Amino acid sequence: MLRPWNIPLLIDALDSVPVYLQIVQAIIEEIRRGRLTSGTPMPGSRILAEQLAVNRKTVIQAYQELLAQGWLEVEPKRGTFVSHKIPVTVAAPFLAGPPAKAAIPDQPGFGFTPRESLPAEPLAPGNLVFTDGTPDVRLAPIGALASAYRQVLQAKGRRNMLGYGDAAGSFELREALSVMLNQERSLACRPENLCITRGSQMGLFLLAEALIKPGDVVVVDALSYPPAWEAFRRVGATLVPVPVDTEGMQVEELERICRQQPPRAVLLTPHHQFPTTVTLKADRRLHLLDLATRYRFAIIEDDYDHEFHYGYRPVLPLASADTEGLVLYTGSFSKLVAPSIRMGYVAGPRQVIETISQVRAIVDRQGDLMMEVALAELIEAGEIKRHARRAHGEYHQRRDALAAFLGRYLGDAVRFSVPEGGLALWVEFDAAIDVDQLAKKAVRQHVVFTPGSRFALRPEDRVNAVRLGFASLSVPELEEAVKRIARALDA
Amino acid sequence: MLRPWNIPLLIDALDSVPVYLQIVQAIIEEIRRGRLTSGTPMPGSRILAEQLAVNRKTVIQAYQELLAQGWLEVEPKRGTFVSHKIPVTVAAPFLAGPPAKAAIPDQPGFGFTPRESLPAEPLAPGNLVFTDGTPDVRLAPIGALASAYRQVLQAKGRRNMLGYGDAAGSFELREALSVMLNQERSLACRPENLCITRGSQMGLFLLAEALIKPGDVVVVDALSYPPAWEAFRRVGATLVPVPVDTEGMQVEELERICRQQPPRAVLLTPHHQFPTTVTLKADRRLHLLDLATRYRFAIIEDDYDHEFHYGYRPVLPLASADTEGLVLYTGSFSKLVAPSIRMGYVAGPRQVIETISQVRAIVDRQGDLMMEVALAELIEAGEIKRHARRAHGEYHQRRDALAAFLGRYLGDAVRFSVPEGGLALWVEFDAAIDVDQLAKKAVRQHVVFTPGSRFALRPEDRVNAVRLGFASLSVPELEEAVKRIARALDA
Repeated sequence: MLRPWNIPLLIDALDSVPVYLQIVQAIIEEIRRGRLTSGTPMPGSRILAEQLAVNRKTVIQAYQELLAQGWLEVEPKRGTFVSHKIPVTVAAPFLAGPPAKAAIPDQPGFGFTPRESLPAEPLAPGNLVFTDGTPDVRLAPIGALASAYRQVLQAKGRRNMLGYGDAAGSFELREALSVMLNQERSLACRPENLCITRGSQMGLFLLAEALIKPGDVVVVDALSYPPAWEAFRRVGATLVPVPVDTEGMQVEELERICRQQPPRAVLLTPHHQFPTTVTLKADRRLHLLDLATRYRFAIIEDDYDHEFHYGYRPVLPLASADTEGLVLYTGSFSKLVAPSIRMGYVAGPRQVIETISQVRAIVDRQGDLMMEVALAELIEAGEIKRHARRAHGEYHQRRDALAAFLGRYLGDAVRFSVPEGGLALWVEFDAAIDVDQLAKKAVRQHVVFTPGSRFALRPEDRVNAVRLGFASLSVPELEEAVKRIARALDA
Repeated sequence: MLRPWNIPLLIDALDSVPVYLQIVQAIIEEIRRGRLTSGTPMPGSRILAEQLAVNRKTVIQAYQELLAQGWLEVEPKRGTFVSHKIPVTVAAPFLAGPPAKAAIPDQPGFGFTPRESLPAEPLAPGNLVFTDGTPDVRLAPIGALASAYRQVLQAKGRRNMLGYGDAAGSFELREALSVMLNQERSLACRPENLCITRGSQMGLFLLAEALIKPGDVVVVDALSYPPAWEAFRRVGATLVPVPVDTEGMQVEELERICRQQPPRAVLLTPHHQFPTTVTLKADRRLHLLDLATRYRFAIIEDDYDHEFHYGYRPVLPLASADTEGLVLYTGSFSKLVAPSIRMGYVAGPRQVIETISQVRAIVDRQGDLMMEVALAELIEAGEIKRHARRAHGEYHQRRDALAAFLGRYLGDAVRFSVPEGGLALWVEFDAAIDVDQLAKKAVRQHVVFTPGSRFALRPEDRVNAVRLGFASLSVPELEEAVKRIARALDA
């Protein structure tokens, strides 16, 4: 005996969910809400189709789905019923629940503490943005990259690269990269000393995972890079700041810390200190390596934009002078190719590299092998070097242009040294000008920059300065951007 | 007054390190070892060039580098000296150190406990490999992918995708994916309910990060996926197993656990249980959702190969019946496109998605925007669906072929049900046959498979079974592979 079907189903023909699935969902919801219980006979497909004003085939399709899922069952010659296997009791808690689902609720149904939202950066069209030192994507070697990638995809015998691979990254890229790093940065690494990562951020993340236990001390520059702090804090590191001056990290102060509690690791950017752009001087380098030997801590050296140096010659990394496996070296292709090409690396003792490769397999299994091989071929063909040379000339010009515009339009309001390399200037403002306030006024003049106080680990390290990335803006854009800052100053 | 230069420098013209850098390294090493001390005069470039039998320009280049780094200093009219800034004392600890660096040492110079190595899988050429269910990379839609990627790279106005972007992934892909998931999996998600990840492994990793505090209970199937356990264990979760039978997770047992200590999350693969391939039945689904509502735990549903279902119709996910934001849904394109395309997603309440996107920014900043947009365009053009249909027919055939070969060549030694979907068969062996032993014998017959005991959380859950992925081998390869297992049985 069939009961009349008196349960309203809301069908929306314009919904992106197909009609038969809307019927399926509605019936499941009715079962869950306890309005359709075990053994309830279902109306015939013809009747339901008429009531819902849909094609009968659509109802049959919905019923077949519900049968396949086990919500309904067919009793031969009697008809279709809500399954007897569905326990009567479980529907009860849903009775008081919300009506059938329209969207995923914003808040989860289980207890959950969301992370505090990071402030969104204003990126309205027409704004000129000083990044903290990203390259100009308009100069990226797109043609070369696209054709290398296509060749890799289409090459015979390359299909195996579409499968799962080594979590440390493609051997071909590690080989090309080891030659490149040995020549340009005087490392002495072999492919097994390298783990390819998704940019240097993942390199820092993996090193934090592999090295740090809760409570370990990690020394950082008092002014440095917040996402790096995050990677170490989340595994329980206690960050201890050391002041930076015009010769880089004050290693004397580090020695004082070592005498109190030797750190597990010291994280720094010796080539162009982030954010202040200064280079760590030779005597401090030597002192730092000596402290690492005496106190047995790891030096994590982020060599993040060594490709761009306009002084006589780039300074070699600490890693090139390390004979005892104390330095873990990270770098990336983000500055060299494009930020969205998430390709970086960690170089270090094989034991550490093997361990971080295993951690990496838990994070995201492996990298994009095809992209890795395409990049290896660009390196081997000299394309990356050619691109670096082209970009280098351009960025050198932009550095000098920005320095000239700052002098011309801001005059005494600012003080800065022209950095020997990198993609940004560190500009200190006169004490009478509040940089945080200026940044807000600047947005109204359609120029965006991040106040340097963001890079201070502690409130007392805050500075009245700004890191102005010059590489992503052309010379006319730089001039216009500095003029807008001047206007904000006068506003 | 110049001392005679009596320090031997070993220069190797065939080394990949340029000669001038070898000189630089050797001199720094001499300074660090205390053989060259502050104020020591350096030989003139002509003299050193003669002694080393190198071009004088090379020596000048090396000196300039050493001057730039601050190791040397020039005193006008007197000559070049080791810098006075280098403290005399610090060189001492290096005196007893190793000789100049030839390679990065295998072990780091600081205390370090390496992770235990995972066993390497034998992949000698000529071996036929049963994966745990990967697709056939020979069928991957390479042409379509390469041309979509090229178009994205070359399109005007697309250069901004080379820059930094949203850590949750490209809006274009999240939009295309939400339509696809709503249509095919009956979710009700909007782009803001999605975070694009590097494959589903990263999805699990981020969820573990966002949800779990040390000591939290996470329930998993007693037989399940070890890399998923790893993601939860590393944040301190206590994994509690629930047995699996032919209807999926035994939810009765889960209820018993809930009464003792409600879990923080339940992790499962309801569509095709990994590794046993069974589908979670409707009454258990309902019971599970009910328990989640009552005990307020998160259900993490890994819908890892729903695209391939050969029964009447794929079963809809738990997420499609969740009205309260209890289900966090993960999936990936690894099975659909290729494993090396590391592209997956998490769908869930906006609050959770925003949080995991922030964690994701710490892990690797963001995904590959260009690849994400290329994939979005393949989805919108229907190319992904067309590929899935082609692959579907092929895999259906391979499933049936493997089932037939197992019957023909292994007969009574094995017992299995043909699964309704997925890319693998779960094959139990007769108790008289030790699967772990068989796997070793099989390698000698050039066929590789992973014993199912690897998927057991506890020793007592071990089974005498094997998960045989059939999708990555052609029908003739499947026949040959099963014959080789038969030979291993007889060996």
